[in-house]
Amino acid sequence: MLGALNHVAIAVPDLAAAADRYAELGAKVSAPQDLPEHGVTVVFVELPNTKIELLHPLGEASPIAAFLEKNPAGGIHHLCFEVADITAAAETVRATGARILGDGTPKIGAHGKPVLFAHPKDFHGALVEFEQA
Amino acid sequence: MLGALNHVAIAVPDLAAAADRYAELGAKVSAPQDLPEHGVTVVFVELPNTKIELLHPLGEASPIAAFLEKNPAGGIHHLCFEVADITAAAETVRATGARILGDGTPKIGAHGKPVLFAHPKDFHGALVEFEQA
Repeated sequence: MLGALNHVAIAVPDLAAAADRYAELGAKVSAPQDLPEHGVTVVFVELPNTKIELLHPLGEASPIAAFLEKNPAGGIHHLCFEVADITAAAETVRATGARILGDGTPKIGAHGKPVLFAHPKDFHGALVEFEQA
Repeated sequence: MLGALNHVAIAVPDLAAAADRYAELGAKVSAPQDLPEHGVTVVFVELPNTKIELLHPLGEASPIAAFLEKNPAGGIHHLCFEVADITAAAETVRATGARILGDGTPKIGAHGKPVLFAHPKDFHGALVEFEQA
């Protein structure tokens, strides 16, 4: 069920500086996009085979605010894998003994597609997102 | 200069368990390979567009031992970007104001190709490797 790596998300304390660094290295970098329903402002860094998402907190209930408090310099926040069917993927993940976060109901993610997250403790410390491609 | 994402490396405390989880999710997973000159045992997880490298310390001077002491459950350790020319890439990285780790001389990495690492503080908390493709 595990498809392509859709993106690697990096939480950054200074979105403009981070975007500039990747642009200076020759990557195509999007304008910042506010996603208030996800509590983040995001810049997409396009690579030939996948993308980096630079995340910065937006609003008071941002899901990455606590991460940046613990990691004030920023850090790699999560990986996102594409799957063909999010409900089937959740069942497969659970069948391996790993936990799905929340109530297990897919949410609409930053790309407008259904997503779920698995518990980092069940993925060797890595926060893993699954997105229905 | 920034090419494809060659791999995402995840340091794990239990290599067999981590490899099993990715195999159970349907990914093609290699046998463990000891790389004594790099102080790691590695399992490659092949995805359609890139790969995950599961790293476990090997020997007493492993470069990931300290990381696992700080992150006993494991965690995402670094990203590796392909570049066409490692020496030119290092110059470009330095020109953006970011630091290259060590003495700046490329080493031969886990894939037998020249690599360099940039300072995580200059990449928003992410340890970034550049590999001459």
